[in-house]
Amino acid sequence: MRTLNVALGDRAYPIHIGRGLLDRADLVLPHLKTRRVAIVTNDVVGPLYLHRLCSALEAAGVQVSAVSLPDGEAHKDWATLNRIFDVLLAERCERSTTLIALGGGVVGDMGGFAAACYQRGMPFIQIPTTLLAQVDSSVGGKTAINHPLGKNMIGAFYQPRLVLADIETLNTLPGRELSAGLAEVIKYGLIRDAEFLGWLEGNLERLVAREPDALAHAIERSCRNKAEVVAADETERGERALLNLGHTFGHAIETGLGYGEWLHGEAVAAGTMMAVELSRRLGWLSEVDVARVAALFERAGLPVYGPKLGVERYLDLMAHDKKVEAGRLRLILLRSLGQGVIHADASPAEISKAIEARCR
Amino acid sequence: MRTLNVALGDRAYPIHIGRGLLDRADLVLPHLKTRRVAIVTNDVVGPLYLHRLCSALEAAGVQVSAVSLPDGEAHKDWATLNRIFDVLLAERCERSTTLIALGGGVVGDMGGFAAACYQRGMPFIQIPTTLLAQVDSSVGGKTAINHPLGKNMIGAFYQPRLVLADIETLNTLPGRELSAGLAEVIKYGLIRDAEFLGWLEGNLERLVAREPDALAHAIERSCRNKAEVVAADETERGERALLNLGHTFGHAIETGLGYGEWLHGEAVAAGTMMAVELSRRLGWLSEVDVARVAALFERAGLPVYGPKLGVERYLDLMAHDKKVEAGRLRLILLRSLGQGVIHADASPAEISKAIEARCR
Repeated sequence: MRTLNVALGDRAYPIHIGRGLLDRADLVLPHLKTRRVAIVTNDVVGPLYLHRLCSALEAAGVQVSAVSLPDGEAHKDWATLNRIFDVLLAERCERSTTLIALGGGVVGDMGGFAAACYQRGMPFIQIPTTLLAQVDSSVGGKTAINHPLGKNMIGAFYQPRLVLADIETLNTLPGRELSAGLAEVIKYGLIRDAEFLGWLEGNLERLVAREPDALAHAIERSCRNKAEVVAADETERGERALLNLGHTFGHAIETGLGYGEWLHGEAVAAGTMMAVELSRRLGWLSEVDVARVAALFERAGLPVYGPKLGVERYLDLMAHDKKVEAGRLRLILLRSLGQGVIHADASPAEISKAIEARCR
Repeated sequence: MRTLNVALGDRAYPIHIGRGLLDRADLVLPHLKTRRVAIVTNDVVGPLYLHRLCSALEAAGVQVSAVSLPDGEAHKDWATLNRIFDVLLAERCERSTTLIALGGGVVGDMGGFAAACYQRGMPFIQIPTTLLAQVDSSVGGKTAINHPLGKNMIGAFYQPRLVLADIETLNTLPGRELSAGLAEVIKYGLIRDAEFLGWLEGNLERLVAREPDALAHAIERSCRNKAEVVAADETERGERALLNLGHTFGHAIETGLGYGEWLHGEAVAAGTMMAVELSRRLGWLSEVDVARVAALFERAGLPVYGPKLGVERYLDLMAHDKKVEAGRLRLILLRSLGQGVIHADASPAEISKAIEARCR
């Protein structure tokens, strides 16, 4: 088991990465305020892993409530969030009860937001079961639900007390979802870790084959990169924005197609290619760089072109993005491979050309 | 104009108390991140004051959006909250846009919670227009909406950047609502300020007559008391719980009758009498003390008995309260007039007798 500490002052917390962590109630107990937890999971992950987690906790004397949500981004809405509140209240969970999110990014986002809001804040633990959730949403405290007019528009910054990343849960992950997680892994290399990018170019097939050692390394390195960024900028005023490489374009893809059509990681991969293309047009990347990034995504089984929504539609959807400030779109681009930058000066014409070049 | 500083480190903010502050855009401008605000108000307060506030801000070059909610506690729910999000998104408000809540406690609670959640947090300013909101919800950062199973169950701690308490807005406040606000004013005297309690006993009729100097003094003293408590305990782990004197009983009254039947302050007054009665039964207060408190509430036009819901119903509703920890009800009682205490050892039998004695 590897352990990484996310340094956030009095909200610092550990991330344990390893095999069989689901059964390790001993890792959970020190982080509970009382021996009472409510587990939030979904209808796909619950049947696979809920019983094991419950058994381990109950054997340790913890009283457990559980609620299972329908699977998928399409349910990341208020109605589904309210099902969590209904159960918490019906089972008289207290402000000192700990909420555990067992599942992927949607479960983590909703469980975390529910924990942030229930009685104005209850303790929260994350047990991410997808690669995406393990390398992305388990660090940083971003929680949210969607609004019909925009993704993740309603939410909170709320830190967990503990994250358990059990690599064995990735064995039941569909290949398409593993690939989606790799999009974010590759992102860390692109924005700030050229050495890791090189490692990925040498080891990508080992990740696709789910070799535990390779996965553990990639997860730890990804989390460390994200933890460093978040520790420096908890509420996304500066450097943290770099983590959004490909996301403004990607959110437009997800919203434009309707949530759930493309996986988040797939949209991020295609969106990153748009950012990479724009960086090339600004003279920061070469044709060879663009080809290297595309090759890495393709080896990971990810799309390198966005859907043909029409450039106008892309721009319109992007104008709703949280990264807009004073009317200007702040895009994350690459100065070089391994060095992301925040750029607010790209003209709509330049952005349009980059989108056009990477739609098919 | 009097100014009070709420000392919360990097989230410290000023409360200005005075006449005609609605027109003082100069007080607002230094606290805006960009010249863009969204005002949340309601259908009663909006027609009276929205135009003045908008005019002042627009004259200062600020772009203003506005949304008016239906009036009353019955609308403090998700559906109404979502109307705020709909407008913020439709009018493309950004994360740097400042949300201004113009109205009473419900508007402040919903506006504040919307600001806490919109894009995970936008700047927030409060312009409370009721006495209750000026002396209570304008300090402390508590925001929330109700759930069918409990009041204020879904919310956040979220601090405003500025509070403007314009005493002239109290001139249009119905007498019943002025009285409800006085319940919280009296509360500060009871839990920690015997000297202020004495002042209230000598000046209560001046407050009921809305004498500006008396109101300004009572508001400032109330806010100072609350600010001291909150600064010492921002997220309600210890002393802050004292502010809930009468509230656990009071919430049972509000929930039991259905939100909106009694005003919050009315329920708090009757609930405080239950806490006072229980304190007498524990030997902490005398019959004379009980009569003094009841007389003060009655002079303020407040009820001193709760409705006959049945003791079992009271206890059941109170068991849902946020103040429950490890299954025990933590009640706020009085050791003496001017000294509140947290007490978790009252037996259900003792609590029942106190409720029974103060229902009619």
